[in-house]
Amino acid sequence: MLYIPYDALTDTLEKGLLRAGLDEKRAAQLADVFAGNSAEGVYSHGVNRYMRFLGEVEKGIVDLKAETEVVSSFGALEVRDAHFGIGPINAEDAMARAVALSKEHGIACVAVRNTNHWLRPGRYGWQAANAGVIGMCWSNTINNMPAWGAVDPRLGNNPIVLAIPRKKGNVVADLAMTQFAFGKLEIAKLSHEQLPIYGGYDENGNLTTDPEAIQKSKRPLPIGYWKGSALSLALDMIASATALGRTTAMVAADSHTEYGITQIFIAINFRAAVDPEKADEILDTAVDYLLGSTPVDPEKPVRYPGQNTAKIRETNLSRGVPIHEETWEKILAYVNEK
Amino acid sequence: MLYIPYDALTDTLEKGLLRAGLDEKRAAQLADVFAGNSAEGVYSHGVNRYMRFLGEVEKGIVDLKAETEVVSSFGALEVRDAHFGIGPINAEDAMARAVALSKEHGIACVAVRNTNHWLRPGRYGWQAANAGVIGMCWSNTINNMPAWGAVDPRLGNNPIVLAIPRKKGNVVADLAMTQFAFGKLEIAKLSHEQLPIYGGYDENGNLTTDPEAIQKSKRPLPIGYWKGSALSLALDMIASATALGRTTAMVAADSHTEYGITQIFIAINFRAAVDPEKADEILDTAVDYLLGSTPVDPEKPVRYPGQNTAKIRETNLSRGVPIHEETWEKILAYVNEK
Repeated sequence: MLYIPYDALTDTLEKGLLRAGLDEKRAAQLADVFAGNSAEGVYSHGVNRYMRFLGEVEKGIVDLKAETEVVSSFGALEVRDAHFGIGPINAEDAMARAVALSKEHGIACVAVRNTNHWLRPGRYGWQAANAGVIGMCWSNTINNMPAWGAVDPRLGNNPIVLAIPRKKGNVVADLAMTQFAFGKLEIAKLSHEQLPIYGGYDENGNLTTDPEAIQKSKRPLPIGYWKGSALSLALDMIASATALGRTTAMVAADSHTEYGITQIFIAINFRAAVDPEKADEILDTAVDYLLGSTPVDPEKPVRYPGQNTAKIRETNLSRGVPIHEETWEKILAYVNEK
Repeated sequence: MLYIPYDALTDTLEKGLLRAGLDEKRAAQLADVFAGNSAEGVYSHGVNRYMRFLGEVEKGIVDLKAETEVVSSFGALEVRDAHFGIGPINAEDAMARAVALSKEHGIACVAVRNTNHWLRPGRYGWQAANAGVIGMCWSNTINNMPAWGAVDPRLGNNPIVLAIPRKKGNVVADLAMTQFAFGKLEIAKLSHEQLPIYGGYDENGNLTTDPEAIQKSKRPLPIGYWKGSALSLALDMIASATALGRTTAMVAADSHTEYGITQIFIAINFRAAVDPEKADEILDTAVDYLLGSTPVDPEKPVRYPGQNTAKIRETNLSRGVPIHEETWEKILAYVNEK
């Protein structure tokens, strides 16, 4: 494992993005997304996706030159068409707008259509929480999960983020509707490990902990069985109807590639309407109560979502960001190619 | 089983509520909640809760005379204190306000503190969807579910509703954060049935399908294991901070009775900002695609959440609403008591 200093990392990534054709502003913004996600420990959605992103640009799935258009707005609700541009940049810009609107209206929603994979969903929750507002956002995906009772995948695993700002540490729940994220299945497969609990069905329709069998059958379990199934459908529909965007069904019908998807960003400027210190105190009661739980395994105290992120970031900023050697070599080869 | 005509049912329930001390308007509104929930097939949260509600009134948990106060508002965000009044009425009034605000601002949020159990969560989703807007609402609860990795229950099972209006039938996902709702555990226990999948742990910490063992251990599984755990915490925190209301922790600290809880209602007036017919078409694609799924069991076609509700209501309105004889006798005894 290599440990690359953060600035050197963003520098290199930026160079490659400029080479791929991004303008300077976008290259800097996107390099920070890749590096930042790795720095915060979400290695599955950080630097290791860099070459895949460049591949999507080459295939024409991501349009580097696309400009987001504000299609319409009504009060605190704004609808955008991202015209198949760069997913993480579209997401960051949309959440920034939702936050600004929420500071004016108390709650706001920016819905984005025709956007692309946003890498790590939690990033946009942190963004809202760091701006002092509750952030909610979710994205639909291509069809990658069967509905409850179904064999064929006709739902997306639509990741949702619920982010709550707190002086003692933001709480950021970031969860896809499949029991195991696809990145997790891949990592388990590569390290020849079984999943700790059933993650889906094998090709014979039996529940299994074998990640490869689930990838083959394309039948991962939704979170909460039929409940995850319901949640997934609702998230797809709310986002798509609000944005007039493509549903999972429409993405599936169009191609086997996930692009032109739909996202929604809701911001609740909760501190505007109540005593902000009281609100902070209330948030602390929930977390402190949770942290006081009796753990099943005395060695593993209960944590809240997002609890370790700041610590990991600190470590990785002082020690350098861990990157697999092969990944780094490929990036350097691309960046330095004549 | 008795089948009571809807009008006769609401009439009787109303009489009892007047006897208990509700004014005429509230008695009529609440009678319709009890009867309506049963009429729509949600028997676990309908007429069978009537006597329990009256018991809560007697215990002083529910204050029949309480007037909801608008504590503060900011743009499209309104905060209410229900002063421990009647849960279903507070919820219905709050969603009505959220819907009205969303028609003005595009998105709106009404957060309610110090309210009480709202019976069937889905009702308020139907309310929003019937008014043509997306409805999202959730409630926190007393501590009734351990966090992921914990033994003692320090999270609520915080039911969430996501409701999407659609001309061909609203989609209403209504789900608590426990794999099985507590009403379901109770029904399975009473009918001496095992759960179809693991629903929680027994007192020895083993996963079990025995509903009674789960009730004893107080360790139901969250939906999606650690994901349900994260979702639950986030829902508690967003609602409580926005409403300046009591968290699950605060409800737990105060007593062993669930009251004075917090709810949130978000309405997205999605048809205001886009072509409403287009939006409707998009919603249909998601549902039609889902309905076309290959079912695991050919006898059980895949359904969408809320699909059967209208049909059940129609049947129960024409045939009469099914009520257990014992339940009906107790109600009649109360209503007709001198």
